[in-house]
Amino acid sequence: MTKAAASPDPKSKAEIEEGNVFLPRFDAEGLVPVVVTSAATGEVLMVAYMNQDALTRTIETGEAHYWSRSRSRLWRKGEESGNGQRVVEMRTDCDQDAMWLKVELTGNAEACCHTGRRSCFYRAVAGGAAPGDGPSLRFVDAERQFDPEAVYRHADVAKGTLKSSE
Amino acid sequence: MTKAAASPDPKSKAEIEEGNVFLPRFDAEGLVPVVVTSAATGEVLMVAYMNQDALTRTIETGEAHYWSRSRSRLWRKGEESGNGQRVVEMRTDCDQDAMWLKVELTGNAEACCHTGRRSCFYRAVAGGAAPGDGPSLRFVDAERQFDPEAVYRHADVAKGTLKSSE
Repeated sequence: MTKAAASPDPKSKAEIEEGNVFLPRFDAEGLVPVVVTSAATGEVLMVAYMNQDALTRTIETGEAHYWSRSRSRLWRKGEESGNGQRVVEMRTDCDQDAMWLKVELTGNAEACCHTGRRSCFYRAVAGGAAPGDGPSLRFVDAERQFDPEAVYRHADVAKGTLKSSE
Repeated sequence: MTKAAASPDPKSKAEIEEGNVFLPRFDAEGLVPVVVTSAATGEVLMVAYMNQDALTRTIETGEAHYWSRSRSRLWRKGEESGNGQRVVEMRTDCDQDAMWLKVELTGNAEACCHTGRRSCFYRAVAGGAAPGDGPSLRFVDAERQFDPEAVYRHADVAKGTLKSSE
């Protein structure tokens, strides 16, 4: 779909949808959403964002880089937590405004989420539940693979950075 | 991660990340990105967006509804193409600003993409390729499951609507 807020794009619909030239389309903030799945299990691990620089570095290095919206800076996944992502395959979608990365987890913890879980998607929404309407989330696959307090405290001390929301 | 452009949120980090109350967090445009995977195969089928109304209708009906940015209107998946999505499981992520839907495809064509493919992610980016730098996309799983010209022309005639980018 065409993002209403996207910058003007001189490329034709056919070039974008049926072409073999990579023409990533960033939104008004210069970002593209990225779905990250495990190459081993297929599960969805996280949704993150890339700007042009993060995308270029990811392609060049084969290691996932993202744009941190909370910290407004480029971020190599695992730079603090040690839980990095090696890209096995990168795909773009029909209108080239979303990416899909299949990754191998390179850290010891087999985890992507800053809360210590393997996936950021560790809660299911109950059917029929209205948003905000009492308890309606069920924890699934929510076992912690690492202790975020220990991991990020260590990173803070070691690198002098603020606590990450990675 | 906290979206810089998001509306102010009075909920605590702990409530959002470790609570069992569904508190979806929409961006400045009132949207949340949604990863859609096949409940049968696990493959990523598409990335779409929901506003509050689309999310509520999806939960109420069990049928995937999205916000079409190109048409600026609510959209029930399959309303024109016939290729709908029944929700098997819906998850939210750590900071509740992204959704993951596992779906069953309800149409005859076993397809999600408006180009006729099963998934919108039918092209892989070659390793080491720079964006825009010549042919660098490889078609994978790109067989068409239906003829988009025939399907959407029929819908136009039948419903008097403009050609969809669904």
